[in-house]
Amino acid sequence: MTRPRTAARTVEHPDLSEVSLQQVMEALVDPVRRTLVSQLARAGEDLTCGTFEAPVAASTLTHHFNVLREAGVIRQYYRGTAKLNALRADELEERFPGLLSAVVGASVAEGAEVA
Amino acid sequence: MTRPRTAARTVEHPDLSEVSLQQVMEALVDPVRRTLVSQLARAGEDLTCGTFEAPVAASTLTHHFNVLREAGVIRQYYRGTAKLNALRADELEERFPGLLSAVVGASVAEGAEVA
Repeated sequence: MTRPRTAARTVEHPDLSEVSLQQVMEALVDPVRRTLVSQLARAGEDLTCGTFEAPVAASTLTHHFNVLREAGVIRQYYRGTAKLNALRADELEERFPGLLSAVVGASVAEGAEVA
Repeated sequence: MTRPRTAARTVEHPDLSEVSLQQVMEALVDPVRRTLVSQLARAGEDLTCGTFEAPVAASTLTHHFNVLREAGVIRQYYRGTAKLNALRADELEERFPGLLSAVVGASVAEGAEVA
């Protein structure tokens, strides 16, 4: 059985201008989500969902990725059947200067990547 | 009736080395607390509790000040009968470089000081 060619394997992303500081803070206040963001930042490349180390079930991880995506922190896209995650670092830096790097820096410094 | 001279009008403050990123993020995720912190940062001087503009009851404000104090974000002290609030900006900068200034900067940029 073939997949319909119109199947939408796209994911919606907010424009950063529509994202509030409150949303980003709520995204980053969760230690598991900070872990994901820190791992992405340290990897320096886009990562598939299965790559991340986090002490939660896969379904919970999906929820955390969704929160990060809706807050404009990550961009998700498909490469074949794999879903990749990219940090929207440059856009976030423009919208909230210094915020992401300060949080990631503090996370890494605390050794909190794997909570 | 006179107050006993031993009455403790001191307030406890954590050493910043004992404060976790999680605590500071939880302190700063609340929009009212970000408002208080932003007002302190913009004032550039220590402020009495009554000085702050916030859309909450005085008792609620006291709670928010306590959370900020316990997270090491502010220092509270008495001058006579007035309780003053000071931002622990330099200590926070050393512990979590760039974090407070990024949050305050974004708060101010959003015009979110008075929520």
